[in-house]
Amino acid sequence: MQEKNSVGIVKEKIFKSEESLPLDCGEKLEEYELVYETYGTLNSKKNNAVLVCHALSGNHHLAGLYTKKDKYPGWWDNLIGPGKPLDTKKFFVIGVNNLGGSHGSTGPKSINPKTKKSWGSKFPILTVNDWVNSQKKLISHLGIKKLKAVIGGSLGGMQALQWSIQFPDCLSHTVVIAAAANLTAQNIAFNEVARQSILTDPDFNKGDYYEKKLVPKRGLRLARMLGHITYLSNDVMKVKFGRKTKTKGYQYSFSPEFEVESYLNYQADKFVDEFDANTYIRMTKALDYFDPAKNNIKNLSQIFKKIKSEFLVISFTSDWRFSPDRSKEIVKALLDNNIKVSYAEIDAASGHDAFLMSNDHYHSILKNYFMKIFNTK
Amino acid sequence: MQEKNSVGIVKEKIFKSEESLPLDCGEKLEEYELVYETYGTLNSKKNNAVLVCHALSGNHHLAGLYTKKDKYPGWWDNLIGPGKPLDTKKFFVIGVNNLGGSHGSTGPKSINPKTKKSWGSKFPILTVNDWVNSQKKLISHLGIKKLKAVIGGSLGGMQALQWSIQFPDCLSHTVVIAAAANLTAQNIAFNEVARQSILTDPDFNKGDYYEKKLVPKRGLRLARMLGHITYLSNDVMKVKFGRKTKTKGYQYSFSPEFEVESYLNYQADKFVDEFDANTYIRMTKALDYFDPAKNNIKNLSQIFKKIKSEFLVISFTSDWRFSPDRSKEIVKALLDNNIKVSYAEIDAASGHDAFLMSNDHYHSILKNYFMKIFNTK
Repeated sequence: MQEKNSVGIVKEKIFKSEESLPLDCGEKLEEYELVYETYGTLNSKKNNAVLVCHALSGNHHLAGLYTKKDKYPGWWDNLIGPGKPLDTKKFFVIGVNNLGGSHGSTGPKSINPKTKKSWGSKFPILTVNDWVNSQKKLISHLGIKKLKAVIGGSLGGMQALQWSIQFPDCLSHTVVIAAAANLTAQNIAFNEVARQSILTDPDFNKGDYYEKKLVPKRGLRLARMLGHITYLSNDVMKVKFGRKTKTKGYQYSFSPEFEVESYLNYQADKFVDEFDANTYIRMTKALDYFDPAKNNIKNLSQIFKKIKSEFLVISFTSDWRFSPDRSKEIVKALLDNNIKVSYAEIDAASGHDAFLMSNDHYHSILKNYFMKIFNTK
Repeated sequence: MQEKNSVGIVKEKIFKSEESLPLDCGEKLEEYELVYETYGTLNSKKNNAVLVCHALSGNHHLAGLYTKKDKYPGWWDNLIGPGKPLDTKKFFVIGVNNLGGSHGSTGPKSINPKTKKSWGSKFPILTVNDWVNSQKKLISHLGIKKLKAVIGGSLGGMQALQWSIQFPDCLSHTVVIAAAANLTAQNIAFNEVARQSILTDPDFNKGDYYEKKLVPKRGLRLARMLGHITYLSNDVMKVKFGRKTKTKGYQYSFSPEFEVESYLNYQADKFVDEFDANTYIRMTKALDYFDPAKNNIKNLSQIFKKIKSEFLVISFTSDWRFSPDRSKEIVKALLDNNIKVSYAEIDAASGHDAFLMSNDHYHSILKNYFMKIFNTK
């Protein structure tokens, strides 16, 4: 169903790189494709472009529908569109599926030109740094020298932050939402359980399952269920599910009977049809590896010295995976360098997932920020 | 190695029931055995007995060693022994492996007398209520009419609480540590991921794996890893592991490289050799089902009307699975009934696992409480 102020029907585009991409792991991708979408119009000065980076399970389809029959619009449709906080009447918005993704960009299930088979286990582990390098190629291909802003939530926020460090001259504004300058031990631990779920699923076949027509559904299901719990707050789960059961009285069986169990199992079943396990484990590795300050948050001020963009940093009170304290570390290091930064801690009950929702306070802050940066040429 | 003030070398005992046990699920166990240990001496009046209930992965081996060569003593050895907070010079302490357990009491891997094969999938799902009924039989068998106290942490605390409700005349004191009157949706959700890990492991074979010489190690490993994360606090993980890696620089592989990953994988490997998957999923169900107030915490005051024992309730500041707020719900409902209750919220960084550790403040509170109840005959 088409939403109010929707960007309407959209179409995927493909960027095929003409040069190889050296990676942090030491390998090189000789050729690759990035699938992307754009909304709004690039102005003649090419200075109204905003790049949106996606999180673990996201993709390039930010807004609008592919066909009128689509059940759901792009994942950030509440934010992006004509008259919306990220206004496509003003900005040229770009969404790109990360390299290694499972939604069209070159990734583990793509054909490795050398072997003529799916990459599978041989697809390299990419880093946030690698992604930013590949995104920069796309931006250049679009003829854009300097982005008005790079914005992202969670792993997307890490990419935005990395853009500001890696290409300080190529963006005017960085918007980092529900993110951190590195993961905590607890976050790495949750990621490791998700990875072990997939790696130990017999159908994973060490990552080479495409040719065997296998899908490591069991492992990916578990990873998704676990992820889901950590994206929600304890409070929102209490309100949403509490101890409600599907039937009156206990069943004394191992079938899901509490509503929260049914919800998680349903979400997990849906996810395995949409997402690739090889991509999932690589995304979690990119999260674990991201650490511009190299395990010493005090180094962050030093790392930020090169930054030239201005910042908006946003956190959510009930987000326990990327807590407000982690955002404040970023803000502090920016202030140490006299970088212009606005910070908002949004009172929201939904946990980490709050960055995807249309909280009034949150959206009005984004709207005002984008309005302001549109007016300052 | 024998610890200071150890109860020394201990021996398991077996209680074989002579009557059947009706269960909450509607089934009946015609016969069953409970393995248990005792420390200290039952006095002539038989009024110095303390029952210790164990948590999910615990057992009846509370203190001491089986042989001088044992690497580790019983799991609550820091609490129980001559001169320790629960002083075996004063008290007769009883530890019992819960029915359905995997350490000697009748459980899923025991032989079902009807089929002459392991129970496996046919072993019923027990409740806290069922456990308390079976423990009561053991206590009667030992000739004890009234326990001085029932004490437990986590799921053990739920059993202690249930004792006070179910057999109000049979205990003088209830000690509930790091527990709650029911699980939150978040806790049930974590348990469901653990169950799904085991249930979907192909080696689980719907619970009938013993005769096939299979062990659902993959599933049980994941369940244990996940459990472990939630028993620790974010802060303690930061101090203990942080982002430390085994080698300098990233490996760009899926082998564990952060220390927190190695730790979790090591703990998981150890656990699968000691614990039975069928027991694990049943223990989590007992946790999920425990809810004396029937999903309305306001009913707790009503349920507590029958209670005759006095209470000590203890919580730990960093415990996010059974937070202090959950203990306070119990305290409030006790106070509503003018039941004598002492409450302590211990400042501890270790999360839920704090109940197993020998924090000075925590242990001095227990020591004083037990000293006081020993002196009041």
